[in-house]
Amino acid sequence: METTHDCLPCFIRQALEAVRFATSDQDVHESVLRRVLTAAADMDLKQSPPLMGQVIHRLVRQISGNDDPYKSVKAASNRFALKMYPLLKEKIEKSAAPVETAVRFAIAGNIIDFGVNNEISPEIIEATIERSLTDSLCGSRNVLQQFVFPGKKILYLGDNAGEIVFDRMLIEKLSADRIFYAVRGGPVINDATLADAEETGMTGLVDVVDNGSDAPGTVLSECSADFLRLFEDADFVIAKGQGNFETLSHVNKPIVFLLKAKCPVIARHIGCDIGTAVIWQRFFPTD
Amino acid sequence: METTHDCLPCFIRQALEAVRFATSDQDVHESVLRRVLTAAADMDLKQSPPLMGQVIHRLVRQISGNDDPYKSVKAASNRFALKMYPLLKEKIEKSAAPVETAVRFAIAGNIIDFGVNNEISPEIIEATIERSLTDSLCGSRNVLQQFVFPGKKILYLGDNAGEIVFDRMLIEKLSADRIFYAVRGGPVINDATLADAEETGMTGLVDVVDNGSDAPGTVLSECSADFLRLFEDADFVIAKGQGNFETLSHVNKPIVFLLKAKCPVIARHIGCDIGTAVIWQRFFPTD
Repeated sequence: METTHDCLPCFIRQALEAVRFATSDQDVHESVLRRVLTAAADMDLKQSPPLMGQVIHRLVRQISGNDDPYKSVKAASNRFALKMYPLLKEKIEKSAAPVETAVRFAIAGNIIDFGVNNEISPEIIEATIERSLTDSLCGSRNVLQQFVFPGKKILYLGDNAGEIVFDRMLIEKLSADRIFYAVRGGPVINDATLADAEETGMTGLVDVVDNGSDAPGTVLSECSADFLRLFEDADFVIAKGQGNFETLSHVNKPIVFLLKAKCPVIARHIGCDIGTAVIWQRFFPTD
Repeated sequence: METTHDCLPCFIRQALEAVRFATSDQDVHESVLRRVLTAAADMDLKQSPPLMGQVIHRLVRQISGNDDPYKSVKAASNRFALKMYPLLKEKIEKSAAPVETAVRFAIAGNIIDFGVNNEISPEIIEATIERSLTDSLCGSRNVLQQFVFPGKKILYLGDNAGEIVFDRMLIEKLSADRIFYAVRGGPVINDATLADAEETGMTGLVDVVDNGSDAPGTVLSECSADFLRLFEDADFVIAKGQGNFETLSHVNKPIVFLLKAKCPVIARHIGCDIGTAVIWQRFFPTD
């Protein structure tokens, strides 16, 4: 997905929010802002928005000297989501349609995104999950009815810390031959990395791989050879969140995207309202 | 008032809104955005925000080839406000405190500002005026009690088209030796120029001068010698709107600022909530 003109002011706002998150030093804030403004002025708009996200968060880490500004936020999100796990797990098991319920929770968990909005509170998360069972889903419900993959190799692309616990609940309900779970190759915003997979029990459940890149999405041209082999070998990819959607929605591969449409550009692109739970596929195995 | 870090993403958003207003040509949108991003990257933050507003709107006019993108919006705002004039005039005359009512209407009229928000509807304007008589005023009510200036020379700095009709209603209630009304020296956003003063009857009421500058505020270093002489000679200045506040709030002169605090930076600077009606003075004649 290409970068739109509407993304440009949003990049500058995101840079300011991120650098304020990383340090209280106003000289660093100004320095990051000036560098991001310069980078945005020259940006190739054919690139997907997460490429600028990568530039922004590299500058924030480099200039602030803080290698992982969202480290404590990620740990807190994981703890918070793990506390919800037993109750939500029970709701899934008691549900008339456990896979659909798990998918709905997995999409609701995508609200834990500090890239779009860094004022995510426990109340907002709980309210989103509460509503997720009755909210309308934008996309194809047919996809949901075929959400079992016997004999198939699945690659599940994670998005954020905290949210990864909701991914775990969905993976626990998936029938597949083998499931791999991918995280980012290094810290960027509150995106899940290997540390989050370990903290949330994902590593004990399936094979976890990192994609070798610190972009807040899946930029295939930057991913490691190991990750690319898994991506090619997978019969089916489940991709969480806006960043993975923005970087992979054009790729010729059976991928289903599960996300909350959190910004007007994505919502317009998909054809839904902001805040909608989205299940979107370009190709599906039965096509 | 200096430019804050929060102003930077807002400049880019304003540039995008303004160029979309001026033309539907997306190449022009992109060109203006890149030029504004570059200018913002190098901006001297000691300058007041309207200096960047001037850069933005000059680029919009120059690259779009549209000398006055808000021309029809300004004419429509004037017509709309003139239609409200008889009823509001009657309310002022029947009021127990006509000057205060006129001041409240003049501040409410400041909502007609396409720089901060280009989705101002007649409904928003009417609701703002309706509430203005009971809304709390941020600032000093003492200023209101002394809002007569017998024997004094007053310079009234206008802000937007449409709003100028509300300024006229206040000027009609002011006791002063002489009143001058200043407009911008050229088109910028929907700010009032000489044409608007003529369309709304201001030229028949008081002496109208243009300040010689196309900044969306009053940047004294850019104003004409004639305007500066008036500014110096004035015993008292009444300055409308955020742009005049941002460019003059530090100036050593008896000025009262009448405005709606429409952005978080201004609201924080003044110490009020967004949306508040503000009457603010640095010095007052009785000090």
